[in-house]
Amino acid sequence: MNAIKTLLIGTALSIATTAVYADMKPEDAIKYRKAGYNVMSWNMSKIKAMAIDAPESFDAKQVANAATAIAAMANMGMGALYIAGSEESIGDMKTRAKAEIFTDKDGVKEVAVKFNQAANELAKVAATGDKVAIAQAFKDTGASCKACHDKYRKE
Amino acid sequence: MNAIKTLLIGTALSIATTAVYADMKPEDAIKYRKAGYNVMSWNMSKIKAMAIDAPESFDAKQVANAATAIAAMANMGMGALYIAGSEESIGDMKTRAKAEIFTDKDGVKEVAVKFNQAANELAKVAATGDKVAIAQAFKDTGASCKACHDKYRKE
Repeated sequence: MNAIKTLLIGTALSIATTAVYADMKPEDAIKYRKAGYNVMSWNMSKIKAMAIDAPESFDAKQVANAATAIAAMANMGMGALYIAGSEESIGDMKTRAKAEIFTDKDGVKEVAVKFNQAANELAKVAATGDKVAIAQAFKDTGASCKACHDKYRKE
Repeated sequence: MNAIKTLLIGTALSIATTAVYADMKPEDAIKYRKAGYNVMSWNMSKIKAMAIDAPESFDAKQVANAATAIAAMANMGMGALYIAGSEESIGDMKTRAKAEIFTDKDGVKEVAVKFNQAANELAKVAATGDKVAIAQAFKDTGASCKACHDKYRKE
């Protein structure tokens, strides 16, 4: 349990449900991490399409729902999924996480907090339906994604 | 575009961002579907742990965030990901979707609407922090998941 606790990344992302993590297989931790990132990716692509690339397809409710999903991913404590044993790909379950994401707590916390703030701001702005503000908040969120990818994701 | 439109499942899940779906590879559609389901699964397991199996670990904010994530998955229009070409596994990208989920529009709509209502109710109840109500809403949501799995998921 201490091993799990010390692996929690950033207070903003920490989670106390040891009942879940004590029994979690490392390959499942990778699976759930990737699920969260893929949900972010799909919803970012929807917002990009509706707010930037094809504004004629803008649908306020769909943009708001997409932004809410991204914020929900930011708020659900994914840091807790970086458990011991999940540092490398396990068979078909590939991870592109760099070793540093497991060790550089301060650096990870910094990008995680920035992403969390940007994603929640995007959800807030999306709820207003203001296209210009949404496009800006989308770009800010994308930049906060990229900051983490550049530092902690392979290739 | 018509091919995509006719594959949209249920008005509650339809989505008009053809700019996204026109260019989507079937394997990516499967990937994003699985991402949504895996996010639901992880968050359901957290709520089960905190509200039922290990109530001493109950954390109102974490339960609320988990329930919000599940509701966000229910609201983000996953029905639009059941595109032509994504009926069967593609290489390593496995799908357990039965053929019926692509054809039985009325049946799919029924289970989808029930899940959507249950997940949004769970999020609403989780925001109150009422443990008893959360446990009940969790069970109702789980039942609505199972109703779809029994009918439209292989094995």
